[in-house]
Amino acid sequence: MTSRASNITAPTQFLDVNSHRYAYRRFGEGAGLPLLCLQHFMGTLDNWDPAVTDPLARGREVILFDNAGVGRSTGTVPGTIQGMAAHALAFLDGLGVTTCDVLGFSLGGMIAQDIAQDRPALFRRMILAGTAPRGGDDIMHLEKPVLARALSDPTLRGYAVLQKIFFAPSESSQAAGRAFVERLAQRKEDVEPASGPDVAGAQIAAFRDWEHVTGSRFADLKKIRQPVLVVNGVFDEMIPVSNSYSLGEHLPNAVLLTYPDSGHGSLFQYHESFTRQAAAFLDSDSPYAPY
Amino acid sequence: MTSRASNITAPTQFLDVNSHRYAYRRFGEGAGLPLLCLQHFMGTLDNWDPAVTDPLARGREVILFDNAGVGRSTGTVPGTIQGMAAHALAFLDGLGVTTCDVLGFSLGGMIAQDIAQDRPALFRRMILAGTAPRGGDDIMHLEKPVLARALSDPTLRGYAVLQKIFFAPSESSQAAGRAFVERLAQRKEDVEPASGPDVAGAQIAAFRDWEHVTGSRFADLKKIRQPVLVVNGVFDEMIPVSNSYSLGEHLPNAVLLTYPDSGHGSLFQYHESFTRQAAAFLDSDSPYAPY
Repeated sequence: MTSRASNITAPTQFLDVNSHRYAYRRFGEGAGLPLLCLQHFMGTLDNWDPAVTDPLARGREVILFDNAGVGRSTGTVPGTIQGMAAHALAFLDGLGVTTCDVLGFSLGGMIAQDIAQDRPALFRRMILAGTAPRGGDDIMHLEKPVLARALSDPTLRGYAVLQKIFFAPSESSQAAGRAFVERLAQRKEDVEPASGPDVAGAQIAAFRDWEHVTGSRFADLKKIRQPVLVVNGVFDEMIPVSNSYSLGEHLPNAVLLTYPDSGHGSLFQYHESFTRQAAAFLDSDSPYAPY
Repeated sequence: MTSRASNITAPTQFLDVNSHRYAYRRFGEGAGLPLLCLQHFMGTLDNWDPAVTDPLARGREVILFDNAGVGRSTGTVPGTIQGMAAHALAFLDGLGVTTCDVLGFSLGGMIAQDIAQDRPALFRRMILAGTAPRGGDDIMHLEKPVLARALSDPTLRGYAVLQKIFFAPSESSQAAGRAFVERLAQRKEDVEPASGPDVAGAQIAAFRDWEHVTGSRFADLKKIRQPVLVVNGVFDEMIPVSNSYSLGEHLPNAVLLTYPDSGHGSLFQYHESFTRQAAAFLDSDSPYAPY
């Protein structure tokens, strides 16, 4: 493995498609299909934990992507998941990727579900971490006291907020959160601008729209036939684990994996387990999710 | 591996402890601790799927056990989980096993939880499949129409009932159920007597008692500090998957794995995945459940 195969050092690249310029990083190699990574609320390329991306990049190319208006991608942030999905599709088309795997975390997991419905042949296998189906419960209500307290705490800045809200309150989970923040901070050059209130506002609007469902709740999930691995921490305050239960029950071909003593960022807290499980799942060529 | 390392051929053995004689089988070898397997409602030694026991026996000794009054074990079936746990402890003590791992399926998972509370040092790692915590929801209500129909169907006899009620109604799950029944039927000699109404009655009484909780619901689970792997199918009509969610949320050190398109017998339906996951979990020497 070269030193390039890490999100600590991988150079940011840019792709011009139509009138948009998309920022992205791609690194790693192996026999697997490329793994598109779709990011969380306000997250940029720099928010991908190298302890998650780098082990996965040892078996396949990992593609990190800033959606429109995020990081150094141009344009405005769409106010709907569908709008974000359209940008992700334009990016993949521009890159010439016709089939790949996907890791969608939180907001990114919703975009992945939307793409899978819109273009079923694109994703071979899907990993949905800390996310919710359309019509899910209690999705990203930052006004909830437990979240509002952390977000309005003047002593918490930047990544320290992530430690607080992505991890459970226990000492062990908070310690994992500190380690996560330290790993993110290892990238010193070619870094992204932090997302501001305009990004937050549009993405929150997209969450509100995603909570709204017409027709039979969760019926759309039956159309996602791909093998799916659903992952969450049992103490997720941002997108409660009940949403992962709904995904596991209503997706026809999904395995659910939950982690103890952890919240929204369980994949970062248990990065060794998560990357081992994710690689085993992605390495399978079965038409069925169990691996 | 010798041909003995299979539940198709392993001889039944007997252990006399106090005034009881317990029937059991032990086979397999490897670096792992012995794995005690605790069986489901009305199940005997012959109900352990060789597709589950045999791969696990390649890394450790597997110990199958008939509780009192079941199969060829003497005595009467206790009407409580605690009573069954006392017999399992007497058996392990008589065998000289001071520490082991455990796979508890359904009723057996409840016995495993009771033992873990009573003698915390005995089990190193625990696998709880298709089971429920004390105070769980809708545990083995055979009078529910979906179960009562299958149980009273005169065209379903013996193992055919298991195919119906352990597997989801889909064609794919029922096909997996047929394969399960065929695997059980491979054992032709030294077979067990089928359980009768006396076994059923006492075990149902134990389920009713297990539904009853005094004090704070699920608080007892905090005392089970071992790493636990919780497994279930999302369409389990006998012990609904919500009980596995409760285990995953309230056990302090548990990973939950759910399988799609499957019911109570998900570990048999997905025996390749289950034994791979179970072996990886059992092979870990971490104090934490994620593997």
